[in-house]
Amino acid sequence: MNPYFTSVEPEKAYRLINHGPATLVSASHDGIENVMAASWVCGLDFTPAKLTVVLDKSAYTRQLIEKSNKFIIQVPNAKQAEMVHYLGTHSKANEQDKLSHSDVECFYVEGIDQPFVSGCSAWLYCELIPLEANQRDHDLFIGEVKAAWADSRIFQDGHWLFESAGDEWRSLHYIAGKHFYKIGEVLDVE
Amino acid sequence: MNPYFTSVEPEKAYRLINHGPATLVSASHDGIENVMAASWVCGLDFTPAKLTVVLDKSAYTRQLIEKSNKFIIQVPNAKQAEMVHYLGTHSKANEQDKLSHSDVECFYVEGIDQPFVSGCSAWLYCELIPLEANQRDHDLFIGEVKAAWADSRIFQDGHWLFESAGDEWRSLHYIAGKHFYKIGEVLDVE
Repeated sequence: MNPYFTSVEPEKAYRLINHGPATLVSASHDGIENVMAASWVCGLDFTPAKLTVVLDKSAYTRQLIEKSNKFIIQVPNAKQAEMVHYLGTHSKANEQDKLSHSDVECFYVEGIDQPFVSGCSAWLYCELIPLEANQRDHDLFIGEVKAAWADSRIFQDGHWLFESAGDEWRSLHYIAGKHFYKIGEVLDVE
Repeated sequence: MNPYFTSVEPEKAYRLINHGPATLVSASHDGIENVMAASWVCGLDFTPAKLTVVLDKSAYTRQLIEKSNKFIIQVPNAKQAEMVHYLGTHSKANEQDKLSHSDVECFYVEGIDQPFVSGCSAWLYCELIPLEANQRDHDLFIGEVKAAWADSRIFQDGHWLFESAGDEWRSLHYIAGKHFYKIGEVLDVE
C-alpha cells in the first residue's frame, strides 16, 4: 500500500475535483474490473458530498456501474497522461485486455469492493443515486461520495500542493484529441 | 463591440468548458440582470451541445433563469479574478447594486435578450431544458448550447491559445476560499 494514501474529510472532498480535472472512473462487478477516462465529472453538493458523471451508453464501465451501483472517481496526474488517454480512447467492449494494455494497476481498500487505480493523486468512492430518466435520457449519473483519499505528497489538510510538488503531479485538463493542459500557477484574490 | 468576438461552431463549443474552468452565469428577466460565479458547470453532450450547471436555491440568478429559461455561461480569465470572486461571494438578493459594485459590464447580441459579460474569453448562450425534479432535488440545471463565441485572441479555429496569449488570458480553476489556479502548460500525448 502507498504510504502516502491519506483519508480526506468528506466535507472537503469537493476540492479534489473543483478545478475541473480529467478523471478516471473505475468499477467492478462480479469479478470484472474496468477503468475509463472521463472529463465530464463535476461537483453537485457539499454535504453530503455528491458529484455528477456523464457515461456514454457505449462505455463498458457504465454497465458495471449500473450493476454494482458503486464506482471510484480518480484524479490522475501528468505522469499518467498517456495512460489516461489510452483509457479514454479504447473500450473493453472490443478489447478485453484493455487494462493490461494500458499499464493500469489496481489496488483494493478494506471494505470496498471497487478497484482503485494506483499512482493517482486522489480517489473518491461513490455510491450511485439511481435516477433512471437522467441515466437513460442524458447519460447523467449522480454519485454520493462516501469516502475520499489523496496522496499526501500532492493534497494535504484540504489543500492541493501544486506550487511545491513536482510538475509530474499536476492535474490534467482535457480539451480534445491528444491535447491536455496541466494545471498551472496559483492565483489568490485579495 | 469587441472586434475579436467570434462565433464558435456549435460542435466545438464543448471545448470552451471541457478543461473545467470557473465560469460566470448571467441571465436577465423582465429588465433585471444578474451575474454569478459557478464552478459546477460541465459538458453533457456534443450534438446538440448541452451542459449542466448547479445553481443553489439562494442564487438570485437562478430565479431569473427559472423565469426566462435562458442564460449565458462565460469563461472568464485571470485579469478578471477579483471580479469573479466578488460575483461568487455576493448575492443580489441582499445587495441590489451587486453588478456595479463588482465592475461587471454587460453587452447584448442582436436577437438574444440575455446579458453577455465583457472581457471574458468565451460565451455560451443556453436555453434551459426544464427538468423539475433535477432542479428541485439537486439544484441541477441542463442547458442546450444554442450558440457560442470566443475572443479570437485566446480561442481560434477550435483551439485555446494559452501557450501564446498573455498570462492574463489564462482560465481560472477554483478550489475554495480565495484560492484559484490558472490553467498551465500544454501536454500533448503521443
